[in-house]
Amino acid sequence: MTISFADPKTLDHATLEEGTTFAPRFDAHGLLTVVTLEDGTNHILMVAHMNAETLSLTLETGIAHYWSRSRKAIWKKGETSGELQEVVELRTDCDQDCLVMVVRQTGRGAACHTGRKSCFYRRVKTDQSESRLEDTGLPRLFNPKDVYGA
Amino acid sequence: MTISFADPKTLDHATLEEGTTFAPRFDAHGLLTVVTLEDGTNHILMVAHMNAETLSLTLETGIAHYWSRSRKAIWKKGETSGELQEVVELRTDCDQDCLVMVVRQTGRGAACHTGRKSCFYRRVKTDQSESRLEDTGLPRLFNPKDVYGA
Repeated sequence: MTISFADPKTLDHATLEEGTTFAPRFDAHGLLTVVTLEDGTNHILMVAHMNAETLSLTLETGIAHYWSRSRKAIWKKGETSGELQEVVELRTDCDQDCLVMVVRQTGRGAACHTGRKSCFYRRVKTDQSESRLEDTGLPRLFNPKDVYGA
Repeated sequence: MTISFADPKTLDHATLEEGTTFAPRFDAHGLLTVVTLEDGTNHILMVAHMNAETLSLTLETGIAHYWSRSRKAIWKKGETSGELQEVVELRTDCDQDCLVMVVRQTGRGAACHTGRKSCFYRRVKTDQSESRLEDTGLPRLFNPKDVYGA
């Protein structure tokens, strides 16, 4: 089974925004931005990308598959670390160029490669014309060296 | 006052990911992806982009300013509709190429140009090899024709 999608160029604006046809608008690199949220809490875990192949794989298997821009390869999240993500719901936005994916984060509950639950563990603080980052205090649920090596 | 940011190329990997230096990694188009969440509920409202100028404007004014990729212009959210966004917190991710912005959504509470609270008002359903969209039932808080014209 391979799930295919409609071509957004074949849809008028109203159908793209209000219709029932799923026609993801991949960018010039063939990618969509995906925001991943934790089921139940709505906490944001990470932001990553999918191409048509990994979107199809995600829908077929119910397990999150992204496209790694740095490795230029299919990225089955958790394949190395064990932190697989089970898809609960996938939503698209008004102009279908972005997805929200609600997941159950398995393993130790760490979506971030630093071992934290979420990639968003620092907040921006400003003071006059200066900006700096402050840790929000998210604990590490694993030691990256133990999982990925030195 | 203009808030400036560090150049991420001047930081080593560990400082970029674990340090206190805010060094946003704008992409080849000079843009960062910004995920906007509602204060209190964590509901996702929208996903948009900022360049260095609108990020600086956002930090200086406390009001969300995006970069409109379609209009190629500064986009002070709510300037036309009245739905301004007051910034409560800004967070960056591990490799500093994405922001999460927590806001108080003013006006009628609609972040989406369709008049809904959130841009993510449709979920993807699959049935065998077919995919389609289903409305999640988010009500319209304004009529776009009344706000933006026909």
